[in-house]
Amino acid sequence: MSAVLDLTRELIRRRSVTPDDQGCQALLAQRLEAVGFQVEHLRFGDVDNLWATHGQGEPTLVFLGHTDVVPTGPVESWRSDPFEPVVRDGHLYGRGAADMKGSVAAMAVALEAFVTAHPQHGGRVGLLLTSDEEGPTNLDGVRRVAEHFRQVGERIEWCVVGEPSSKERLGDLIRVGRRGSLSGTLIVRGVQGHVAYPEKARNPIHAFAPALTELAAERWDEGNQDFPPTSFQVSNLNAGTGANNVIPGTLTALINFRYSTASRAEDLRARTEAILDRHGLDWQIEWSLSGEPFLTPPGGAVREAVTAVCRELCGVEPDQSTGGGTSDGRFIAPLGVEVVELGPVNATIHKVDECVAVADLERLPSLYLAVCKKLLG
Amino acid sequence: MSAVLDLTRELIRRRSVTPDDQGCQALLAQRLEAVGFQVEHLRFGDVDNLWATHGQGEPTLVFLGHTDVVPTGPVESWRSDPFEPVVRDGHLYGRGAADMKGSVAAMAVALEAFVTAHPQHGGRVGLLLTSDEEGPTNLDGVRRVAEHFRQVGERIEWCVVGEPSSKERLGDLIRVGRRGSLSGTLIVRGVQGHVAYPEKARNPIHAFAPALTELAAERWDEGNQDFPPTSFQVSNLNAGTGANNVIPGTLTALINFRYSTASRAEDLRARTEAILDRHGLDWQIEWSLSGEPFLTPPGGAVREAVTAVCRELCGVEPDQSTGGGTSDGRFIAPLGVEVVELGPVNATIHKVDECVAVADLERLPSLYLAVCKKLLG
Repeated sequence: MSAVLDLTRELIRRRSVTPDDQGCQALLAQRLEAVGFQVEHLRFGDVDNLWATHGQGEPTLVFLGHTDVVPTGPVESWRSDPFEPVVRDGHLYGRGAADMKGSVAAMAVALEAFVTAHPQHGGRVGLLLTSDEEGPTNLDGVRRVAEHFRQVGERIEWCVVGEPSSKERLGDLIRVGRRGSLSGTLIVRGVQGHVAYPEKARNPIHAFAPALTELAAERWDEGNQDFPPTSFQVSNLNAGTGANNVIPGTLTALINFRYSTASRAEDLRARTEAILDRHGLDWQIEWSLSGEPFLTPPGGAVREAVTAVCRELCGVEPDQSTGGGTSDGRFIAPLGVEVVELGPVNATIHKVDECVAVADLERLPSLYLAVCKKLLG
Repeated sequence: MSAVLDLTRELIRRRSVTPDDQGCQALLAQRLEAVGFQVEHLRFGDVDNLWATHGQGEPTLVFLGHTDVVPTGPVESWRSDPFEPVVRDGHLYGRGAADMKGSVAAMAVALEAFVTAHPQHGGRVGLLLTSDEEGPTNLDGVRRVAEHFRQVGERIEWCVVGEPSSKERLGDLIRVGRRGSLSGTLIVRGVQGHVAYPEKARNPIHAFAPALTELAAERWDEGNQDFPPTSFQVSNLNAGTGANNVIPGTLTALINFRYSTASRAEDLRARTEAILDRHGLDWQIEWSLSGEPFLTPPGGAVREAVTAVCRELCGVEPDQSTGGGTSDGRFIAPLGVEVVELGPVNATIHKVDECVAVADLERLPSLYLAVCKKLLG
């Protein structure tokens, strides 16, 4: 099955750093149109989104992925050009090999095979791609597409996301949900002054320290059977003018919760603010909810199908995980869609010398094809 | 006595932002040479220093000052051009009016008057000026001049620093010592990672918080009869990549002690490091001692003379203070010199619309002249 290898190579050669699609979606659209897919290009802002479907009626099974990649970092740290795919020691190297041009190629190849072998399949199959999954806000990617779907009454029942979910071997872990992500930009105000006159100033670094200690030590929840406990991190903390003789007037902290379904965003916000108040701080905070947690419970068709495929074709019983970062599944799930994620091993994603095992890449289309057959065949 | 007002104006017109003297010292040297002073220009690196003396033998009374000024900040915030002196409502406005071109002009005018009236005065009088008092390191200013004096065996007994010491009215406070200043650049190491995988990272912000709380709450000493208690400030605290999904790998803090003679720098260092160790941090710190504390005890000739002049000519009993920031006195005192500081009101120094009361400025030469007469007349 070198079709997937060839297609992955063609995609890697396109330098599609977020949000620049660089023709990846046009290439995929052309191939899917050739086997009877209906294709819609949904361009929002500077983001390309592709929506391709085959068949009619219900249910609809959608494969979801992205054509954009993260920046390479220092190119000289790579063993070979990150945009010139090369096979070494059984692995295909290149930016996006694992996250997730390999999966995108595998989905396309699987869909071609499925509709060719089953032109009269039940319901619909679809492929949804965006060029803004890796960006900071994803405003014009799947978030916007989901809004559009809501407006036009597009119905989807099942979704398989091709994000690299596997840990050590293909299929050993699938994601059946994701934690929510709640961010805040906190400003603590003091009174600026000269270090020689501390009695005339109020140092916001000193004032914030006890509250920070308490926030870092807080146990927000215990998680539940589907989710690990909610975690809190201060990702950025900045105060000071650069000069060593000035007590700064303000401190800024960026905080982030990755939270389970055992907590609600509004409660995390309220508890954070209560701690700040209890320490008598002069503070303000701007909250931003980038995704609520979602869970695809056991027993649903797509979760059972994907689990069975891992068991039957990969010979492993996959972990049913809700860990890791966010994915575009968070935008699709609220449409009432069962979302499950299955993709290659994620050990090298976002790193130099990103790669995917050729053997895994060549098996991936058969996994996605098997899901299609189980659900719509 | 408009000689001092005219000379201050001439100095303010020279845009002598550290370390650029812009001809201030040449102007002063010319005037002092005209009345019989011997002048030496000590240029180190890009810093100008002026050493002018009159008379011979012991003791030597030196007036110490600087010709450089701090930057203006946004010029549009000033009511008038900071380098175009103007008198408004009884005050002379301009950068350096109070810190300390007014004092420098007053010292020069006083020295002219003293040697003219007392050509055969006892001992020596001198004026020492630098163009690098306001800079971050002062490496080539009075610090270097003091080294030079040590090498050539230059002897000084008494020193009057013209830094703006007064609080509300001229002569209400003199400085009879200064606290020491000990700085440190602290790096706390963690392990960088993705916020979604906190178990694989170690957040140095969270790790440092309890130690920071303890450092900020620590009572380092109780001070003593001459000094307020030692104070500790974190002036700058920075951690984070800017991204909100990355747990940073390191945290950097700039810390500063202003310490009394009740503590020694080595003990403050050791106690800080013990707190860092006690919290199990992976840390390193680079210390920098920018000045040890000094004290000119009561009973010394220069302290008594300056105190008497405030009492007699200003009609106030001056506070005998060791507070405030550092000054170049810290470099002169270790030569075995009695150092006392007397200058105008410091309310506007380093601010926009810096100014000095014209009435105070015109009285200042008579104060310095009176000190000369008491000590060498």
